[in-house]
Formats: sequence, structure tokens, C-alpha cells
Amino acid sequence: MERGKFISIEGIEGVGKSTNMATLVECLETAGRKVLTTREPGGTPLAEDIRDILMNRGDEPVPEIAEVLLMFAARSFNVNNVIVPALDAGTWVVCDRFTDSTRAYQGGGRGIPMETIDLVADWVHGDTWPDVTILLDAPVEVGMERAGQRSEPDRFEQERNEFFERVRECYLRLAMSEPDRFVVIDTTRGLNEVTNDMRTLVAQILADNVL
Amino acid sequence: MERGKFISIEGIEGVGKSTNMATLVECLETAGRKVLTTREPGGTPLAEDIRDILMNRGDEPVPEIAEVLLMFAARSFNVNNVIVPALDAGTWVVCDRFTDSTRAYQGGGRGIPMETIDLVADWVHGDTWPDVTILLDAPVEVGMERAGQRSEPDRFEQERNEFFERVRECYLRLAMSEPDRFVVIDTTRGLNEVTNDMRTLVAQILADNVL
Repeated sequence: MERGKFISIEGIEGVGKSTNMATLVECLETAGRKVLTTREPGGTPLAEDIRDILMNRGDEPVPEIAEVLLMFAARSFNVNNVIVPALDAGTWVVCDRFTDSTRAYQGGGRGIPMETIDLVADWVHGDTWPDVTILLDAPVEVGMERAGQRSEPDRFEQERNEFFERVRECYLRLAMSEPDRFVVIDTTRGLNEVTNDMRTLVAQILADNVL
Repeated sequence: MERGKFISIEGIEGVGKSTNMATLVECLETAGRKVLTTREPGGTPLAEDIRDILMNRGDEPVPEIAEVLLMFAARSFNVNNVIVPALDAGTWVVCDRFTDSTRAYQGGGRGIPMETIDLVADWVHGDTWPDVTILLDAPVEVGMERAGQRSEPDRFEQERNEFFERVRECYLRLAMSEPDRFVVIDTTRGLNEVTNDMRTLVAQILADNVL
């Protein structure tokens, strides 16, 4: 059986991950692919428990290194118990955030050394990297305005704009350094244009001809 | 203000950690020390949430690397939010398990490389190592028999004897390699003799003359 493809979606808050993920999945399913969607941190019962710890709105300070270790612990559950078994069974996996989020938020945003993050990534998922990573990009003010229209912010959404500027910059740097894996989609344009981009991209992925 | 001393208690299940920890704390308090007790994994609200994930009796498999990352994430909360502030305030800290448990259980028991564990230990607590580590030692059969008389086993207590043999061996190796920090107490003898050993040890620690 042909192995499924692994696609991750990345970006700061408010760039339209949910909407675009739905478009992506719809296009893949229309093309006859079996698709499993998951998210990080989370995706399995125990990983969702870890997510609750990470997103908590309580008073206890969260050390930066604890944040990294918890993100990767959750990822380890998701990779071993969900993502790899699905790919092995020929299912396509679409994941809302993956290790690039840890690089951008904990690395770019908080200043944890990238070598530390990449070392733990190697322990946790070895060569299991997404085949394609879709980076949805918009200026921080645009994202924040859209995200602000939603419910009570979690621990990450409470960060300040400078934090998200560093996260966005890091994402763009990662995309430049791995052009074979990353596709950047500008989501400041109208929804129709963005959706068209997604449809074109899916056609390209299906043709095994991403970039 | 003089910094408090940091004492950890280690050993496999059933070697008498609770009883001996109580004796230790009683002796220290009798000598006029302010003492804080904590445990790992756990010791803070979020670290106790992580403990629940680690000790769970559910069906979801726990990847070995996730176990290591969760142990150290919990430790990071305990070190930053409890242990170091207490030591800085002159309080003595007695901790039921610390990084030597991760070395013995995940390193010795599960075969995670010791360099991996020690690298994460360095990220999480740097030079904050116990001043004294009390290793309570007994043959695995003795510990298992005692532990078996207790309630439903957690995820670790369900392991087989060979696992605990490797854990015990690793503990003894660690004690040999760091004789200035470790004190080994044989807990197969009568309770009175062990308690006497603990009292003598506390007197020695208080005289700053551990070994």
C-alpha cells in the first residue's frame, strides 16, 4: 500500500488555519484520498490532557523549558499513536501545527535555542517530518484583529504583539530555509483568492509536484 | 540567610520511602530546621496533573521518550516553583524522588541513553542537584512483596521483576559513581535499625559532615 502523505498547517493566531484546513481536507477527499485530521498539542486522549496543561489560564508560572518538553511529549503521543499508524495504513494526515510551531513559538518567540528544539524533535519523531507544510501568513495586526473577535484568549493568545512578530519572522525564516517542504500562502487577500490557492496547491500535491 | 539543604530519597517500590522520609523530616524539624516535603513527579498543581498522565492506568501506549519528557516537565515546575524558592528562603527541602529516579527507571529500566537524560536534566535544573541523596535499598523480591500489599498498582508498579532489577542495579551504580552525594541504606533489616541509621545520618548532615 502506498504510504499516506503528511501535511501540516502552520501560522500565528488569526491567519485562518481552521477555514483553510477545511478547504484542504475537502479537496483531498474529493480527490478520493482517505484523510485524518489531528492537531497539536493534542490529537490523542493523553496528548489532549497535556494540551490542557499547556493552555491553562491558571496562576502557576510555566517554565519555558517545561513548555518545550510538554509540546514534544504531546507530539510523541500523536506521532506514535495516531500519525504514523495512519500514514502506514495509506491515510493522508493533515495536522494543525507540528514541530515548526515549537520552533516558531518556543524558539523564535521565547528564545529557546533552535538546536535544543531540533534535538528533541529528532528523539521524538526522527525522520517523520511533514511532506508539505502550509504556512498561512498575514501581518500580526491582521491576525490579532481576527483572533480578537473570538472567545477568551488561552495562555498563548495572551502574549503581546512583539512576541507574535518574532514568531512570524521565525516562520518565514523556516520557510525560506526549507523551500522544498514549505508553501507560504498570503491570507490577507480575499477568502476566494486564498481558497483558490489552496485548491491549486492540492492539485499540485496530488500530482506529486509541489513546488 | 543560609540556603536550605536539598535532600532526595530514592529507591524501588516497597523499600520504605514513606516511613523513612517521615523519620528524616521529624529529625530535621526536631533539630530546628524548617522543612518542606515534595514529591516527583508532582509537587505543584500542574506537575501533579502531569503525574496523573504518567501514572494513568488507561489503554493508550506511552512512548518511552514521552515518559522522559513528562518527568522532566513536571520536575521543571517543581524546581522553579517550589524547590528553588524554598531553598533560597533557607528552608530544607526533602523530595521523594528526583532526577536519579529518571536515570534509574527510564535510563536503567527502559534503556533511554543516560546522556539524553543528563542533557535534559541540565536544561531543566542546571546545578540544582540534591546535596544528599538517600538511596533506600532492598532486593527486588523484598520490595515487591511489601509493595504488593498495597492498593491497585499504577503504570510503573505493573512492570515485571526484571525491570526493577535493572532499576535497582542502576541506582547502585549511580551511588557508587557519586559517593559524595549518595548514602545507601539497607532496608531489609528491622525497622529500628533502619530508623537508627536515618537518625545518625541526619546528625551527620546537620554537622555538615555527610560521609
